[in-house]
Amino acid sequence: MTDLPLTALTRVRRGAHHQITDRSALYDVVDGALAGTLAIVRDDRPVALPVGIARDGDDVLVHGSTGSDFFRRIAAGAPVCLTVTHLLGLKYARSLFDSSMRYRCAIVHAVASVVPPAEKETALLTLSEHLMPGRSDDVRPMTPREVAATMVLRIPLAEASVKDNAGSLVEVDDDGEDRSVWAGILPLRMSAGEPVTSPQTVPGTPVPASVRSAAERVAARGTA
Amino acid sequence: MTDLPLTALTRVRRGAHHQITDRSALYDVVDGALAGTLAIVRDDRPVALPVGIARDGDDVLVHGSTGSDFFRRIAAGAPVCLTVTHLLGLKYARSLFDSSMRYRCAIVHAVASVVPPAEKETALLTLSEHLMPGRSDDVRPMTPREVAATMVLRIPLAEASVKDNAGSLVEVDDDGEDRSVWAGILPLRMSAGEPVTSPQTVPGTPVPASVRSAAERVAARGTA
Repeated sequence: MTDLPLTALTRVRRGAHHQITDRSALYDVVDGALAGTLAIVRDDRPVALPVGIARDGDDVLVHGSTGSDFFRRIAAGAPVCLTVTHLLGLKYARSLFDSSMRYRCAIVHAVASVVPPAEKETALLTLSEHLMPGRSDDVRPMTPREVAATMVLRIPLAEASVKDNAGSLVEVDDDGEDRSVWAGILPLRMSAGEPVTSPQTVPGTPVPASVRSAAERVAARGTA
Repeated sequence: MTDLPLTALTRVRRGAHHQITDRSALYDVVDGALAGTLAIVRDDRPVALPVGIARDGDDVLVHGSTGSDFFRRIAAGAPVCLTVTHLLGLKYARSLFDSSMRYRCAIVHAVASVVPPAEKETALLTLSEHLMPGRSDDVRPMTPREVAATMVLRIPLAEASVKDNAGSLVEVDDDGEDRSVWAGILPLRMSAGEPVTSPQTVPGTPVPASVRSAAERVAARGTA
């Protein structure tokens, strides 16, 4: 696997020692997330919206309505910035100045391409399989009209940076700070609650294994 | 409290029925979050980074290094888009098409202003109090050098949209979908783990009440 290239867009400028150029770290950040924030430039201003994501090889897939102005602009070639952040905890240092959030994030710069009609259903199933593994076997197939109403965009993971300050528990020995002040990390993690059944479901319908396993997956990795 | 204005920037274009114009809903989204994604335009491309946030009245405060190119551009008047997203769950509908993420998000469009030196320490304490309530009493005061090295930006909450699809469990009666397929919500929530003490802390130093209460606060609201 090739390293992520350091370019004018991807070189981390602040806290550069937290930058990771290992491509597998990028994949881990994306694979461990259900959603990211997708930013574009519209009329010279930034606009950033939350989107569901799924990795497909060296790309990230996102989907939206074919009627969405935001997605249409991206389809027409507007550059995007996809930011995926895992908030892992709060770092309580011995001063406010050195205190911080503990996080891992990926920032992807790209021009997306529209997934062509012939590949759209497969791409939607890839998204579904990441967001709700196994669910496609529980429900009816997509209709051609549903597939037609959805736009799928492919965002290449070619130019991306990963920043991870999770290792920053270590203190400098001679920083002069008072060791009798407690310092440490408060870990934060995502978990899933009990599934809530829609009241219109036929009474007695069990919660499917796909939903149970989605909850277990969130619990295992601690992120959505 | 005045409603949030519907402008060209804030009118939700897709899923407009999920838009909330109640200003208190915006405050709730911001107050329930530790971090957001801050986007700017740099060299005609979008760039979006995760930032810690805290509300101060009708503004959001963010802070960064005075040496940060990203923050300097914002200080110089680059328009920002601040996106704050709470992922609340997965909605398992009876079709993949109607399935979605359950979320609440705020999107703020603004030009930020730099908090002047005389107000910076107070603004930093506001940020600290939101991100780590009570912690400022545990640690030494900030030094003038630390305050000087930090830039605080004030983002007005004047032009913002809030979107909340958490009520979308309800199904349309005559949608033709098979009610023997399970449908419902898998709730997602944030929780805090046990605090991890930095090994350089004097042995026996107890975990402060401020850290314990931060963990309780995350547990109570289910978001970071």
